[in-house]
Amino acid sequence: MLVPELPRLSLIPVQLLLLLLLLLLPAQCPARRAGRFDPTWESLDARQIPAWFDQAKFGIFIHWGVFSVPSFGSEWFWWYWRKEKIPKFVDFMKNNYPPDFQYEDFGPLFTAKFFNANQWADIFQASGAKYVVLTSKHHEGFTLWGSEHAWNWNAVDEGPKRDVVQELEVAIRRRTGLRFGLYYSLFEWFHPLFLEDESSSFQKRQFPVSKALPELRELVSKYRPEVLWADGDGGAPDSYWNSTGFLAWLYNESPVRDTVVTNDRWGAGSICTHGGYYTCSDRYNPGHLLPHKWENCMTIDKFSWGYRRDARICDYLTIEELVKQLVETVSCGGNLLMNIGPTQDGIISPVFEERLRQMGTWLKVNGEAIYASSTWRAQNDTVTPDVWYTCKPKEKLVYAVFLKWPTSGELFLGAPEATPASTEVRLLGHGQPLKWTSLEKTGIVVELPRLTFHQMPCKWGWALALTDVT
Amino acid sequence: MLVPELPRLSLIPVQLLLLLLLLLLPAQCPARRAGRFDPTWESLDARQIPAWFDQAKFGIFIHWGVFSVPSFGSEWFWWYWRKEKIPKFVDFMKNNYPPDFQYEDFGPLFTAKFFNANQWADIFQASGAKYVVLTSKHHEGFTLWGSEHAWNWNAVDEGPKRDVVQELEVAIRRRTGLRFGLYYSLFEWFHPLFLEDESSSFQKRQFPVSKALPELRELVSKYRPEVLWADGDGGAPDSYWNSTGFLAWLYNESPVRDTVVTNDRWGAGSICTHGGYYTCSDRYNPGHLLPHKWENCMTIDKFSWGYRRDARICDYLTIEELVKQLVETVSCGGNLLMNIGPTQDGIISPVFEERLRQMGTWLKVNGEAIYASSTWRAQNDTVTPDVWYTCKPKEKLVYAVFLKWPTSGELFLGAPEATPASTEVRLLGHGQPLKWTSLEKTGIVVELPRLTFHQMPCKWGWALALTDVT
Amino acid sequence: MLVPELPRLSLIPVQLLLLLLLLLLPAQCPARRAGRFDPTWESLDARQIPAWFDQAKFGIFIHWGVFSVPSFGSEWFWWYWRKEKIPKFVDFMKNNYPPDFQYEDFGPLFTAKFFNANQWADIFQASGAKYVVLTSKHHEGFTLWGSEHAWNWNAVDEGPKRDVVQELEVAIRRRTGLRFGLYYSLFEWFHPLFLEDESSSFQKRQFPVSKALPELRELVSKYRPEVLWADGDGGAPDSYWNSTGFLAWLYNESPVRDTVVTNDRWGAGSICTHGGYYTCSDRYNPGHLLPHKWENCMTIDKFSWGYRRDARICDYLTIEELVKQLVETVSCGGNLLMNIGPTQDGIISPVFEERLRQMGTWLKVNGEAIYASSTWRAQNDTVTPDVWYTCKPKEKLVYAVFLKWPTSGELFLGAPEATPASTEVRLLGHGQPLKWTSLEKTGIVVELPRLTFHQMPCKWGWALALTDVT
Amino acid sequence: MLVPELPRLSLIPVQLLLLLLLLLLPAQCPARRAGRFDPTWESLDARQIPAWFDQAKFGIFIHWGVFSVPSFGSEWFWWYWRKEKIPKFVDFMKNNYPPDFQYEDFGPLFTAKFFNANQWADIFQASGAKYVVLTSKHHEGFTLWGSEHAWNWNAVDEGPKRDVVQELEVAIRRRTGLRFGLYYSLFEWFHPLFLEDESSSFQKRQFPVSKALPELRELVSKYRPEVLWADGDGGAPDSYWNSTGFLAWLYNESPVRDTVVTNDRWGAGSICTHGGYYTCSDRYNPGHLLPHKWENCMTIDKFSWGYRRDARICDYLTIEELVKQLVETVSCGGNLLMNIGPTQDGIISPVFEERLRQMGTWLKVNGEAIYASSTWRAQNDTVTPDVWYTCKPKEKLVYAVFLKWPTSGELFLGAPEATPASTEVRLLGHGQPLKWTSLEKTGIVVELPRLTFHQMPCKWGWALALTDVT
Repeated sequence: MLVPELPRLSLIPVQLLLLLLLLLLPAQCPARRAGRFDPTWESLDARQIPAWFDQAKFGIFIHWGVFSVPSFGSEWFWWYWRKEKIPKFVDFMKNNYPPDFQYEDFGPLFTAKFFNANQWADIFQASGAKYVVLTSKHHEGFTLWGSEHAWNWNAVDEGPKRDVVQELEVAIRRRTGLRFGLYYSLFEWFHPLFLEDESSSFQKRQFPVSKALPELRELVSKYRPEVLWADGDGGAPDSYWNSTGFLAWLYNESPVRDTVVTNDRWGAGSICTHGGYYTCSDRYNPGHLLPHKWENCMTIDKFSWGYRRDARICDYLTIEELVKQLVETVSCGGNLLMNIGPTQDGIISPVFEERLRQMGTWLKVNGEAIYASSTWRAQNDTVTPDVWYTCKPKEKLVYAVFLKWPTSGELFLGAPEATPASTEVRLLGHGQPLKWTSLEKTGIVVELPRLTFHQMPCKWGWALALTDVT
Repeated sequence: MLVPELPRLSLIPVQLLLLLLLLLLPAQCPARRAGRFDPTWESLDARQIPAWFDQAKFGIFIHWGVFSVPSFGSEWFWWYWRKEKIPKFVDFMKNNYPPDFQYEDFGPLFTAKFFNANQWADIFQASGAKYVVLTSKHHEGFTLWGSEHAWNWNAVDEGPKRDVVQELEVAIRRRTGLRFGLYYSLFEWFHPLFLEDESSSFQKRQFPVSKALPELRELVSKYRPEVLWADGDGGAPDSYWNSTGFLAWLYNESPVRDTVVTNDRWGAGSICTHGGYYTCSDRYNPGHLLPHKWENCMTIDKFSWGYRRDARICDYLTIEELVKQLVETVSCGGNLLMNIGPTQDGIISPVFEERLRQMGTWLKVNGEAIYASSTWRAQNDTVTPDVWYTCKPKEKLVYAVFLKWPTSGELFLGAPEATPASTEVRLLGHGQPLKWTSLEKTGIVVELPRLTFHQMPCKWGWALALTDVT
Repeated sequence: MLVPELPRLSLIPVQLLLLLLLLLLPAQCPARRAGRFDPTWESLDARQIPAWFDQAKFGIFIHWGVFSVPSFGSEWFWWYWRKEKIPKFVDFMKNNYPPDFQYEDFGPLFTAKFFNANQWADIFQASGAKYVVLTSKHHEGFTLWGSEHAWNWNAVDEGPKRDVVQELEVAIRRRTGLRFGLYYSLFEWFHPLFLEDESSSFQKRQFPVSKALPELRELVSKYRPEVLWADGDGGAPDSYWNSTGFLAWLYNESPVRDTVVTNDRWGAGSICTHGGYYTCSDRYNPGHLLPHKWENCMTIDKFSWGYRRDARICDYLTIEELVKQLVETVSCGGNLLMNIGPTQDGIISPVFEERLRQMGTWLKVNGEAIYASSTWRAQNDTVTPDVWYTCKPKEKLVYAVFLKWPTSGELFLGAPEATPASTEVRLLGHGQPLKWTSLEKTGIVVELPRLTFHQMPCKWGWALALTDVT
Repeated sequence: MLVPELPRLSLIPVQLLLLLLLLLLPAQCPARRAGRFDPTWESLDARQIPAWFDQAKFGIFIHWGVFSVPSFGSEWFWWYWRKEKIPKFVDFMKNNYPPDFQYEDFGPLFTAKFFNANQWADIFQASGAKYVVLTSKHHEGFTLWGSEHAWNWNAVDEGPKRDVVQELEVAIRRRTGLRFGLYYSLFEWFHPLFLEDESSSFQKRQFPVSKALPELRELVSKYRPEVLWADGDGGAPDSYWNSTGFLAWLYNESPVRDTVVTNDRWGAGSICTHGGYYTCSDRYNPGHLLPHKWENCMTIDKFSWGYRRDARICDYLTIEELVKQLVETVSCGGNLLMNIGPTQDGIISPVFEERLRQMGTWLKVNGEAIYASSTWRAQNDTVTPDVWYTCKPKEKLVYAVFLKWPTSGELFLGAPEATPASTEVRLLGHGQPLKWTSLEKTGIVVELPRLTFHQMPCKWGWALALTDVT
C-alpha cells in the first residue's frame, strides 16, 4: 500500500512497455525527468518513496561530531553551555577547562584516532540494519567532510584530518544490503550569517544562499546518499531554505534522483506534513498505523544522541526494550532508525556494539517477520498484550511477534481468523509446525513448543508465522 | 582442611592450653603478639588465613593508573613501548604524539575527572563481591595516594590531584559486607634506584630501603587494607625485598594484623610457595582442589588488565563465561578476583558495569551455594559435564551448580548419594522441592521443573541444594 | 607639492562656491560624492592622497596572527611547510608536534594572554610614529576581528576570544597624533574557494564575492581605518578582486572617504602603478626621489615580519641602521613603515620596545627635520657621504641630517648655497648657532661644536637646520 | 691580601719547604690531602680560595627551570601561588589554566626545544665572562640533569628529555677561558620529606640523607663544577645539611678538590660567615672593601631571576648600569655574577644577548683594568664621583675607571699621587699617553683627549692606566 508496485502500468502489456522505453529513453528521458517535479510541495509530496526504504525497516543513526569530545550531557552541549547557560554545563567547563576555552577549541581534540570505517560497517551489517545515516553536519556546523564552505571547521582541515563521510560511504557501499545516508542540519546555532538572517526575521537569506544550499548540493553530488535526513530549520520557513527548490533538483537532477529517500524536516511547518517520509518528532512511536510512511528515530542512550562518557549502564535501553521498539514500529508502518554515538576517537563503545550485535542475532531468526513486511489490518493483538502483527500479502503470511512467552505455554491471539483446512503456524527459528485451535468467535490458540532454556530460538521476542489467516 | 586447625598444638592437652590462655591473655597479649611471627617463611607460612577471606569467595580487582591514559594494548604499555619496543606500541606513539613525548607526560592527562568513589562502591556492592583490591601502585611507579616517596609521580601531586586510595577506602568501608584491599607492585620498571640495584645483581638494596618498604608501611598504616596484594618482584629474591621482615611486622604489629590477608608474590621463588594465599599465575584456574587457599585473579577483558579504549565487545568475557569461572574456582577452593579497568577519567565503562551487575543478579539467587561454602569431596560431576559442587557441612547441604539446563528436563548427577528418607532437592530461586530418584549405584536423577523462559530464576547457571547426600 | 590645496577650485570665486555648497549640501552631497570617483584606475589614481599621510613620515607596522604561535622562520610558515615543503619547516613540525597536527591547531594556542592595547599604544606613541598598521588578516586567513565570513577562524571565536582590531583601534585613537590603519590580505593561501577560483584561471569569482569584498567593507565600516594596506593579490588581476569598484566605494561612500590613504597592491599589475601611495616591493628604498608618494615598509627583524622566537640579537637592525633607513626614506619622499612582530601572547618583546623607544628619543630631538618636511632639490650630499636633506619651504629651512660625526669637527656640505647675510646654521638639540663658511663654488663648511660624549644631543645621527640656503 | 700568600709558612726558610715538598709529594700527597680539611668550619674556612676565582671577576648566572614555563612574576612562582597565595599569581593561574592545573603540569611544557649549548657558550664567551653558573636545581626540586633521586621530576625524564647540565658543561669546557659552575638549592619548597623534617624542627634528617647529599655528590662527581653555588637552607642549620661533612669531602676527595670554589650559603647562620666566598645577600654590593672574597650576584631583570615574558624594556638594567655594577664590585674586591633567565624553549632572549655582548665590547677595551686586578688602597675617588680604582701591584699600575666623561675635558683624581719623573697615564683603547699635572696636595688632573663621537674607545665607561702612582 505504501509503495504499490506500479499498479497502473501493470494493465499495459509488458512488451509494449519495453518498446516505449526503448523509444523514449535516449531522447526524452532527461528532459522528462527534469520536468517531473516542480518546486512546490504539491508536486514534491506526490513523489512515491522508493520501495527499498519501506522494505529496509531498520537503519542505524550515527551522531558524531565535535560534541563527541566533551561527550558530556548531550550533543547540544554548545547550546546548553553558551546559550542557555545551564549550570551543569557551565560548571563542567569551569571545573575542567581554562577560563577562555571555547567550544571551537574542542575541534583539534576530535581526533578520530581509532576510526575504522570497515570495522563500523561490519558491526552495522551484523546488526541486521539495511541503511546507515551519519550526521554529516550537526547544529554546531562542523562538517565531517571537507566542505569548502566550512573552512577550518571541518574534519579534513581540523581534528581527524580525514574525509569521514567518504570513508564511511566507501565502507558501507562495499557491504551488500547496506545503503548509505546522511543527516544534515540546515541551520547552525552560532553561524554569524544565520544569526544575522534570523535577526532580520529571515528576510535576509545570506546563510542558505552562501552556506546551506551549496553544501547540500556538494554532499549529494559527492557522496550520493540514498537517505537525506534534513534537520534543524532554526525556526525559518521552507521558503527561507528554498527547500522545494532543492528537493526538485534532488528528485529531478541529482545523481540519486531515482533512489534517494528524504524526510520531512525542511522548514518550520513542514515536519509531519511535507517532504518524504515523516519523522514528526524525536523518538516518534505512535503505536498505531499511519497513512504515510514514517520513521521512528530513537537512540540507545536514553538521554543523548551523542556519546556521553559518563553514561551508566542503566542509561542504555536493554535489548528487550530495543526489540520492542522495532516490533512496534514496523507493525505500525514505520522504520526504526536506532542511534549510536561513537567516541571522539572513533570507537563504537562495547555496550553499543553489544546492543547492535544482539539486534542482529534477533533479526537473523526473526527477520522474516520484519524485512519487506507490510502492515496488517491489525497492528497489535486485542487479547494478549505485547503481540504485534506484520504480513506478507503475496505469500499469504501473517506474522505475530510476541514479547512475553506465556507461562501456560499457550498463546491466545484474538485478531487472526484461521482457515481450518490450510492454516499453518510456525515458530520462527523452530522446525516443527505448531498445533493450534480456533477460538470461538475469532482468534486462535497456539500451543507453543516445550523448549528448555537453551533450545529457545532467541531470548528477547519470538515470532509466529501464520499462513492463510484473515 | 584448607585451614588445618592447629595440628601441632593438638598434642598438648586442650584443657591445659585453655588455662594458659586465660592466664596470659589479659596482660600479655600485645607482648605475645609482637613475638608471634618470626621473619621467616617457616613462621609466616604457618599463619592461618583469616576466615573472612575464604568465606568471601568473590572480589573485584581494579587496575587503574597512568596506563589508563593511553589505554591502548595493555597496562604494560610503557614497558612494551620503551623497553621491548614492540612495533604496535612504538607506532601508536609515533602516530599520535610529538616525537619527544614521554610516558611521564601522560601523568597530567590522568584526570579522574568523573571519579566518584561512591558510585564505584555501589556497583561493587551490586556485583555481589565481598572485597575490592585497587592497584595502589603498578609497575609504572605512579602511586594513587600522595606517597612521600613518589613526589610528583602520584595522584595527589599530578593528574587527579586527589587521594584516590583514600576516597575509595572510605566509600568501600561505608558499605556493609565489603572489605578494602590494595595491590602494590614491589618493583618499578624504570625507577633509577631499582635499575641500579638490579645491575648490582641486587647486592645493593637502595630501592627497597628508600622506596618500597617505606611505602608499604605507609600504605598499611594509613589505609588499613585487609587484602595486601603484592606483585612484581622484578626478578629479585624475597631477601632483597625483606619480605619476611615486612610480613612479620604486618602480622605482628600493623593495625590490620588480625584481619589482613596477603598473597604469595613476595620475591622470586615465593609464588605458589610462601606467603598468604596462592595466586600462582595470572588467570590461575587449576580445575582441581588445591591443599592451600588460592585465588583466581582474572580479568573481564581477555587481553588487558588496564582499560583499552579500542577493545571490542568480543574481547570481553560474557556473563556465562564469568559465572563459569566463579563456579569452577569456588568448587576447587579458590576465590575469584575479577578485574575491571576504569577509564582515565574515572568511569567504569557500561560494559564492565553490565557484567558486574549481571554477576550480582546471579549471586542474589545463587549466592547461597557460593558464599561461605566449603569444597566438597567431588569438585565436578563425573556423569554430567559442567556441574560443580560446593557444600556447607554444618547445614548438611551439598550444592550442585549446573551451567547447562538439560534438554530432557532431567539432571543426572553421578557424584552424590542420596539418603532415601531425608534427602531433599531444591532449585535455588524456585519454591517447590524437586522430585528425584537414586541411580543404580551412586548418583541421583533430578527432575527439573518445567519453567517457561520468564519463570527461570536466572539465565547463566542454576544451583541445586541437596540435603543429606553423601 | 604632494598635496596641493584644491588648485582647480581656486579659480572660482569663493563666495560663489560657498553659496553653491549651501544650496547643494543637504540634498545633493551624497549624490555628488558618489559620483566623484569612477571605478576606473584613471579616476581613482587621480585622487589626491590626504595631506596627513605625507606629513606623518613614520608609521609602525604590526604583523600578528596565528603564525605568531610557531614563531619560527617566517610568517609564511604555513606556506613553506605545507606547500613548498621546505625541509627546515617540515622538520620543525615533525620534531615538535604529533604527526597529524595541522596549522589550524595553532589557532587555539594564539592566546594573546598578555595583550594590552594601551601598553602597545604607549610604546607606539613613544616611538614618534604617527600611524599604526595592523595585519587585520594575513594570507593565512585568520581575522583579528570577529569576521562573519571567517567563522571559527578569527580572533573572537578562537584563540584570543577578543576583538583585537577593535581593542587596538580604541587605544590608538585615544592617543593624539596617532592614526589607525589596517593591513588586509586579499587572497588566502589555502581557502578552498580561492583555490577553486584559481584553478579556473580566475574565471570564477566566488572568493572575492563571498569573502574578500564583504570583509573589506565590514572592516572599513566598523573600524574606520585611515590607512588601508592591501596585500596579496594571489596572482589575480584587479578585475578579479573588483578593486576599482571597492576603491570607488571607499573614496566616495565609506566613513573614511576623506582621510583614508591606501596603497598600490590591488591586483596583479597594480603594484607601483595604481592605487594610492606606492610600496613597489617589500623593503623598497630606492635612494632617489620618486614622482609619486611612496612608502618603505621594512621590518626590524631582518628575516621575518612575524615574531621569530629563535631570532638572535644580530638578526635585528640596530638603531643606527634604523635611523639611517628613516632619514634616507624621508629625504627621497617616502614614509617609513617599520615593522614589529608581537608574540603569540601579545607581548612586544623588549628588543622591539627598545628599538621603538630609541627611535622616539631620536625623533624628539630631530623630528623637526622629519615630520611635515618636504623633499629638497638634492636628496643626499655630493661631497660628504651619509648626509641627507629635507626642507620646509615655507620656513625657508633646509635640513641636513648627517650620520657620521666628522673627526675633524667640520662638516663639508656640497649641496647648499648659503646666503651670506642671512644664512644661519643650527644643530638640532643644541642651543648656539654654529659657525660656517661658504666653500668656493657651492657648498658650505660647518664648524660643529666641541661636545663631550654626554653633551651630544643624540647618538645615532644629527641634524643641521640651515636657513636661507638655496 | 684577600688571599694572603702562605703568611705563616713564610717564617720557615723556603728552601727547606721545597725540599720537604719534593720528598713528600709523590708518596704522601693523597693521604695528606684526605686529612687536610676536617669537617669543621674552623678547618674549612681556612682553605684558600683557588686563585683563578679572584682573577676571573665576572661570571654569568643562569636561572632556568620549570619556572621558566609560566615565566610570570618570578622564579618563586610556585611558592607565591600555592604557599603565599599572592593574588597576582593565583589570578594568573585562575585566568589561564584549568582549575586543577598543578605546578607539576608545567613540567612537560618545559621543552628546551631550541636549547643549543654551543650558542649559549658563544654568547657567554663574547660577554667577557670567565665562569658560568647554572641552576642545576632550584627550590622547585626539578633537576636539570637526570638525577636518580628526582625520578620523573628532572630534565631527562620530563620536559627537555636531555641532560641539560651535561650539554652545557661540555660546551663551556670547550671554550678556553670559561669555567663551569653549578648552583644547587639544598631545600625544596614542597618536598614531602623536607616538609616532614621541617615539622620535626629538623630533628629528622630524611631529606638531606636520601635526597640532597646524594645529589650533591652525584653532581660534583659527574659534572666536576668549579663553582658550587649552594642556596636555600630552608631555615635549617648546617648540621642538618651536614654541610661541613660534605665540604670536607669536596675539598679533600672530590675530583675538583683543587680548583673548586664555593660560597657561603650552607645552612642558617653560615651566610656571610662560613664557607668559601661570601654572597651575603642577593644583589649584595657594599660599596666598600671587604676583608673576605665576595661576589655580587645580581640579575639584569630588576624583578626576577627567572625569565618573565611580560618584562618591559624598562625592567632591564641598561648597559651603563651594568658596567657600573661591575666596576664598583671589582673595585671593592668582589666578583660580579650577572644573571640571565632563558626562555622555556631554551632561548637567551635578544635583550639579554644584547646586554651580554655589550658587556663583552666594553671588557674588550677595558678588561685590562678588571681581570686579575687587585683592589687598591682607595676604592673610589674622593674628588670626582663615579671613579673607581683597581690595581696591579706587580706591574705598578693603578686603574681609574670613570663613568662620566667630564665636560671640561679634564679629569680630577683626588686619590693617586704621581711620581713626577715616571708616572704615565693612558686611556685604555686609545694610543697616545695623556698629559697630566699633579694637584697641590695629593691627586692629579688628567687632560683627556679630544675625541669625536666615533673615536671614543667605548661608550659606557672609560679606564685610565696610571703607572707609578702611590
